[in-house]
Amino acid sequence: MADAVLFEFLHMEMVAELCAHDPDPGPGGQNMNLSVLESMGFRVGQALGERLPREMLAFREELDVLKFLCKDLWLAAFQKQMDSLRTNHQGTYVLHDHSFPLLLPMAAGLQYLEEAPKFLAFTCGLLRGALCTLGIESVVTASVAALPGCKFQVVIRNA
Amino acid sequence: MADAVLFEFLHMEMVAELCAHDPDPGPGGQNMNLSVLESMGFRVGQALGERLPREMLAFREELDVLKFLCKDLWLAAFQKQMDSLRTNHQGTYVLHDHSFPLLLPMAAGLQYLEEAPKFLAFTCGLLRGALCTLGIESVVTASVAALPGCKFQVVIRNA
Repeated sequence: MADAVLFEFLHMEMVAELCAHDPDPGPGGQNMNLSVLESMGFRVGQALGERLPREMLAFREELDVLKFLCKDLWLAAFQKQMDSLRTNHQGTYVLHDHSFPLLLPMAAGLQYLEEAPKFLAFTCGLLRGALCTLGIESVVTASVAALPGCKFQVVIRNA
Repeated sequence: MADAVLFEFLHMEMVAELCAHDPDPGPGGQNMNLSVLESMGFRVGQALGERLPREMLAFREELDVLKFLCKDLWLAAFQKQMDSLRTNHQGTYVLHDHSFPLLLPMAAGLQYLEEAPKFLAFTCGLLRGALCTLGIESVVTASVAALPGCKFQVVIRNA
């Protein structure tokens, strides 16, 4: 039995359940579901952050915190590391995962591209929540170019 | 970082989110939320069951299947084994977990006892779904006597 998949299955069900309430939502309805997913992710990210050893909370540099998310948080949540991390050195970071586990079930084709935001909202919140616990306020968005790859853009507030 | 807690945190958020829609539901409303949680668990249990190696699907005896759930499924989902398994040899099984991880956050006192069903519905479904994939139709209910311990009763249909 693979325990890692339990989180993935539960996440999939949660997306299905939240989006089933509005089978044909207007733009506002869909956004509300995404924002519910995002805030669930935020609270889970916060809670994960609070379980970190104290010395990890004392990161000096912003970049160190981002590297930590790409390595340790990603490994804990998805059993892999982020594939690349780029920054403009002005508070914007782009985290690129070439094969994001929560998008794998729909990796078969481009026809599912418009479904992708539903499967990314929770993780955007997860990153934002973990950053928040580590003392960094941010805005996190995600974009998909080629399934199952995706990019998370982290913009640090007041950077 | 502890990856096992990711599932627990997500489960907690899901319970909170589903039950937040009806802050003061009638008896029917509360039951509907529980049934939504139970069917999410059912589908996750089914999906987990489908990932089992083929030879595991060929269990001969009902009791072997139940032992498998108590050992392997529980270990995969909750990083511990079930504490005891009893049967009346007529298709009814009682699975006793002395310290059920999803109840631990409310283990502080009896005042939370009435909240417990919300935190057990998903797992009832999980057991029912895994049993279903293994070819056994069942009814699974849960009861709490002393937090954080709980008992799952599995009644096999047409036993």
